Amino acid sequence: MADVLYFEDFPLGEVVEYGGVDVSAADIIAFAYEFDPQPFHTDEEAARAAMGGLIASGWHTSALLLRMNCEAFLMRAAILQETGLEEVRWQRPVRPGDRLHVRRQTLASRPREGRTSVGEIEFLYEVVNQSGVAAMIQRSVLLLKQRPQALSN
Amino acid sequence: MADVLYFEDFPLGEVVEYGGVDVSAADIIAFAYEFDPQPFHTDEEAARAAMGGLIASGWHTSALLLRMNCEAFLMRAAILQETGLEEVRWQRPVRPGDRLHVRRQTLASRPREGRTSVGEIEFLYEVVNQSGVAAMIQRSVLLLKQRPQALSN
Repeated sequence: MADVLYFEDFPLGEVVEYGGVDVSAADIIAFAYEFDPQPFHTDEEAARAAMGGLIASGWHTSALLLRMNCEAFLMRAAILQETGLEEVRWQRPVRPGDRLHVRRQTLASRPREGRTSVGEIEFLYEVVNQSGVAAMIQRSVLLLKQRPQALSN
Repeated sequence: MADVLYFEDFPLGEVVEYGGVDVSAADIIAFAYEFDPQPFHTDEEAARAAMGGLIASGWHTSALLLRMNCEAFLMRAAILQETGLEEVRWQRPVRPGDRLHVRRQTLASRPREGRTSVGEIEFLYEVVNQSGVAAMIQRSVLLLKQRPQALSN
């Protein structure tokens, strides 16, 4: 089993890149049929007129970011709480054939006031396509356990 | 075809309720397998120990909000842009058997500066369960076309 990741494992200013997911027209349409059935997400014909071709639901891109985060670190991080998101911006369309990865930066890292064993991390995520363009950014705050101290005596 | 909804159709302070979606354990697990495979979203056994039972991915709740918004108004609104989200809070767990609906409030409504035919609307969405508890809130800003004026002469 992989090592648990604690508060101390996400130092302030660190930038890491990970992930890699291919987005197909079938993926885009399947997600949109279930959750976001606007024609420029579900219908190539309508999308061509409105958007120059099919584009992914912004929420689909968000869900793909989540999956890449799970695989890269969330599944083994000592998370106490992910209370929400501070900001999401869909900056550029995601289209069939795009390959997306994640650039993650630690914007803030502070011990939680009044709780010595807990730390708060603020991440900025960018979902970057094969041309190096950030299609989406997201900021969110996680509460993590601090690494247990070895007893010294 | 239903009437198009313009900027003027979302007056400041208006509160409306709509939607109604049942969340099953199978739905929760299927979404989580694809996008958020943390054990308390995918495994009833593990979830019982960690969370008192299976809970939905917050992103699943977000996607269900999106679907209810599409059905209620997004599909026929004269939207120019949905640039992102200002805030998301997952406040209470969503569990199998829950029935969710939406309470939407218009927090701000202003003509877009320098663009007379465009207006900006800020919505607060609450995703409310069968006990009247808001499981999630979300704030977001939409740019909408203003209603075309009848020519007078």
